[in-house]
This record gives sequence, C-alpha cells and structure tokens, in this order.
Amino acid sequence: MRQFEDALAESARLTDDALDELIPEGEGPESRVLDAMRYSALAGGKRIRPFMVINSAEIFNVDRAHAVRTAAAVEMVHTYSLIHDDLPAMDDDDLRRGKPTCHVQFDEATAILAGDGLLTLAFEVLAGDETHPSPDIRIKLVAELSKAVGAHGMVGGQMIDLVAADHDFGVPEITRLQRMKTGDLINFSCIAGAILGRASEHQVHVLSAYAHDLGLAFQIVDDLLDVEGDAAELGKAAGKDEAAGKATFVSLLGAERARGQAHMLAEQAIQHLAPFDDRAKPLCDLAEFVVKRRR
Amino acid sequence: MRQFEDALAESARLTDDALDELIPEGEGPESRVLDAMRYSALAGGKRIRPFMVINSAEIFNVDRAHAVRTAAAVEMVHTYSLIHDDLPAMDDDDLRRGKPTCHVQFDEATAILAGDGLLTLAFEVLAGDETHPSPDIRIKLVAELSKAVGAHGMVGGQMIDLVAADHDFGVPEITRLQRMKTGDLINFSCIAGAILGRASEHQVHVLSAYAHDLGLAFQIVDDLLDVEGDAAELGKAAGKDEAAGKATFVSLLGAERARGQAHMLAEQAIQHLAPFDDRAKPLCDLAEFVVKRRR
Repeated sequence: MRQFEDALAESARLTDDALDELIPEGEGPESRVLDAMRYSALAGGKRIRPFMVINSAEIFNVDRAHAVRTAAAVEMVHTYSLIHDDLPAMDDDDLRRGKPTCHVQFDEATAILAGDGLLTLAFEVLAGDETHPSPDIRIKLVAELSKAVGAHGMVGGQMIDLVAADHDFGVPEITRLQRMKTGDLINFSCIAGAILGRASEHQVHVLSAYAHDLGLAFQIVDDLLDVEGDAAELGKAAGKDEAAGKATFVSLLGAERARGQAHMLAEQAIQHLAPFDDRAKPLCDLAEFVVKRRR
Repeated sequence: MRQFEDALAESARLTDDALDELIPEGEGPESRVLDAMRYSALAGGKRIRPFMVINSAEIFNVDRAHAVRTAAAVEMVHTYSLIHDDLPAMDDDDLRRGKPTCHVQFDEATAILAGDGLLTLAFEVLAGDETHPSPDIRIKLVAELSKAVGAHGMVGGQMIDLVAADHDFGVPEITRLQRMKTGDLINFSCIAGAILGRASEHQVHVLSAYAHDLGLAFQIVDDLLDVEGDAAELGKAAGKDEAAGKATFVSLLGAERARGQAHMLAEQAIQHLAPFDDRAKPLCDLAEFVVKRRR
C-alpha cells in the first residue's frame, strides 16, 4: 500500500495546487466569499475523487494538466456540497475535516455564497479551453457533471437524506439514496478521465460499474466508521445518523454483514477493471484502501 | 407600447412553458426539492431576462427553440439567486412576486437545495444539444454564464451587498456592486442570442454596451421604486435598503437626479442599438419600459 499512499498524496498535492491557483484571493469587499471558498476547498481531505479522476485519466494517456483541472472542478463541487450540507438548516455540523465548518468560521450567508461560488466555478473551469482543446469533450464533461449533481443526483440525494427520518427506508431505498447523494459524483469522477481520453462507450461502462460498487462500499464503510468512530478520529461528529433515527446500511444489516458486504463490493469493483490490466492498478489499490481505512 | 407588452407576455409564456417542461415533477422522496424549484421558477414575474435573450437572438435569426431554452436557463439562474438571497441568513424576505418566498413555503433546507438544483439545471440545459447543435456554441454559453454568476459576478455582488452596511460606498462602489450583482447576468442575457447566432465580436460588444446602460437604469429605477413603493405594489418588502442603512443610487444622488440618470442611461442604451436598425425595436422598447415601469 506504500506505493498507493504516495500516489494518493501526489494527486492531493496536484489538486491542492490547482485549487489554490483557480480560486484566487479577492481584492474588493467581495474577497470575503473568495476567502471562504479557499478556506473550505483548501482544508485538506484525502482527495479521493481527484485521485479517481487523475488515475482513470492515466489509463487513457490523458494530458496530466487536463486531468488535474477536471479533478479540481470535481473537488470544488464536493466542497460546495459539504459546505451546504453542514449548514444549520441542513445537518448543522460544526466540524469538518477537523476544522470549524465554513458557516462557523465565517457566517451562514457567506457559507451559502461560498458553496454557490464553488459550484459555479467548477463549471467555469470545465468550460475553459485549458481543460481540453475540444469543445465537444468539455461540453460532455459539463453535461455529465450537471446531471450527476442536480435534483436527480446529489441535490436530490441530500433532499432524501433530510426527509429520511420520516420514512421507513429499507436497503433498496438506502442504496438509491447513496447512489444519488454520493454515488453519482463518484461515478463522474471515475468516467471523467475516460471522457477526456475519448474512451469507448464500453470502457466508460466498465469504469461506471467500478464506481458503482466502490461508491456503495465507501458509504457502507462510512456508516461503520460513523457508528464505531469517535469525533476526534473522524474529524466530524460521530453517530449522527443513528441519533437522528435514520436507517443506514449498518442499522439495517448489522455491522458484521455490512462489513462483509463492503469487502465483497470492493472485490467486485476490482474485478470490473480486469480489461485495463496493470494500468488500473491505482484504482484497484483505491478499492482496497476504501474498505481498510480507519477514517 | 401595446406591441411591446404583447411581446413581453409572449416571451414570458414561452419561457414558462419551457420551465414547466425542463423542471419535471418528481416521484420519489426527492420530489420535495423539485416541487420547490417549480414553485419558485413558475411564480410568474415579468421575465425580462428571457425577453432579452429571445429578442437579441431574433436579431441574428436564431432558431426560436434554441433561444427559448437559453432563456429558460437564464431564468433558472435568476430564480436561484432570488431563492438564496431571500433566505433568513441573507436578506430574510418573506414575500417575492407577491407570494411567500421559497423558504417560507417549504423550509430553509429545501430552499437552499432548490436554489442549488436550479443553478445546476441551468448548466445542464445549456449543455444539452437541444440548445444548439454545435458544442462550441454551447460551451461558450456555459463559459460566459458561469463567469457572469460566480464570485467575480453575481455571487460576489451579493457578498458585497451583505457587507455594504459596514462600508461607506459612493457612486463608483455602488455602480460596481450593481454591475456584479445584477448587471453581469443582464449582460449574459443580452449577448446569449448573439452567441447562439455566431454574431461578430463587434455585435456582441454593441449588445454588451446596451446591457450595461440598461442594467444600471434598471437598478436605479428599482432603488426609486424601493423608496416610493409600498409592499403591495412591489410584491416585496419596500424601503429595506434604506432601513438597513445601505447606500443606494437614490440615497447618494437624490430621487430627482437618480430618475434623470435612469432616463439618460435608457436613451444611451437605445442609441447603442442603432447598427441593428428595426431588428432591435423590441430591445429599444424594453429600455423605455424599464424606466417607465411602476413595479
């Protein structure tokens, strides 16, 4: 795993450098929102989605600079979703990645705007010709990302999550919630490199299948850590879903079966990648990492 | 003006039909956010920005269906900005277009997500090939819209507006605030038709000059109505800026000079359009309407 950890650190460094460059410090009175965008986007994190973008792009020999810009756009969208999800009207979280959440550090209005600004900037970055010289590739990225994070994807998933306590969700409903809330952006992160590399439709499907299983495994492990972890280790308040009376994979399956399911899904995710041989090694390592991680 | 009012009603109808089609009613538990998106997007309004898109597109013989989809995307972004601006953490408004604001009708979390969903959907609509068959045109729309409404445009403008009470703004600062908060989206609305019609750079500049003057005139009239109007007539709480101790064109110039300035700007906006002859008649009528309107 040493090689994987180095690769993860490297893609995080590339992503941070790109975010630092793409979100400039402001000058006028609007600089407050840029400060808030930078605060949350540059707060660290494992940068797993950027890793997916960069290492799936690698399979198709995509220009590294194109992959990194796309990775930064994905991380902007992920950060926007965290900022808005953490708001008092939503999950009301004070800690994120071990630091005060955006609305605690700044204020609610600034946090709402910082999220809005990051989402918008992600599309601006994808639309820029430095992301890819061909407009048809760039518009495909915009189309796929917007579908993944709109009302039928991430935004809809967060809506379901907010009303979840009022419903009696079983495994199918929780699986759909996960697919929308986190799975669709993970899917985009895994296929973006294929889009940049003009991969075949079949190759895109292979990566989608990988993303599907990995995303589900990721969520199950998150649920397990949420129950087992303490706030210090996880960098966020633990056991919240349970306290809110929301069904999770763990509450529905029990910890042991849930863990088994996660391992099975990770194994399956790796098997999907067989057509790519050694070129998919980093993505296989990621699948192992996701189920072994302790935070 | 009868002809103009008919044209305005017609473009509003086309836009409403497009919004109704593009924001589907949901089925699962996420339907709440789609309901909220529809509630705010279909709440009426003069649809001035769609009018700009449709009638500037007309100058360049753009396919009507392309213009209407673009107009709907612009109105989605405008609606998202209203939903977020009305939130308790921002301007805290209860009434909008004579109806309860989104967070009053639904709740804060749903309103935040409805705004996020509309912004995202606007980019999805622009990226779709029904908006224009050529990817280079569609990506240009995405690039220009994202620049107009990000941290250096609308989002930055709203940030400045929120901190405005702490600053001693003069006319230059208020002009810059207006340009960012509302002017940049108005500019996009006026140049989108030119982009769809592959107009020359010079023609785009002409429309930008028109948008610049018209946007400023629009804001000054808004400030005048804000002071003079009552809540019933305007459909929103009146005199708020004054109460919040924020400088406006009216507080800085006085009502009479402000009104004169608005008329001068509208006149100037019309003059910019001379190269387009009669084809720009609807946009000229709009400039007259903007300074004459009573709400």
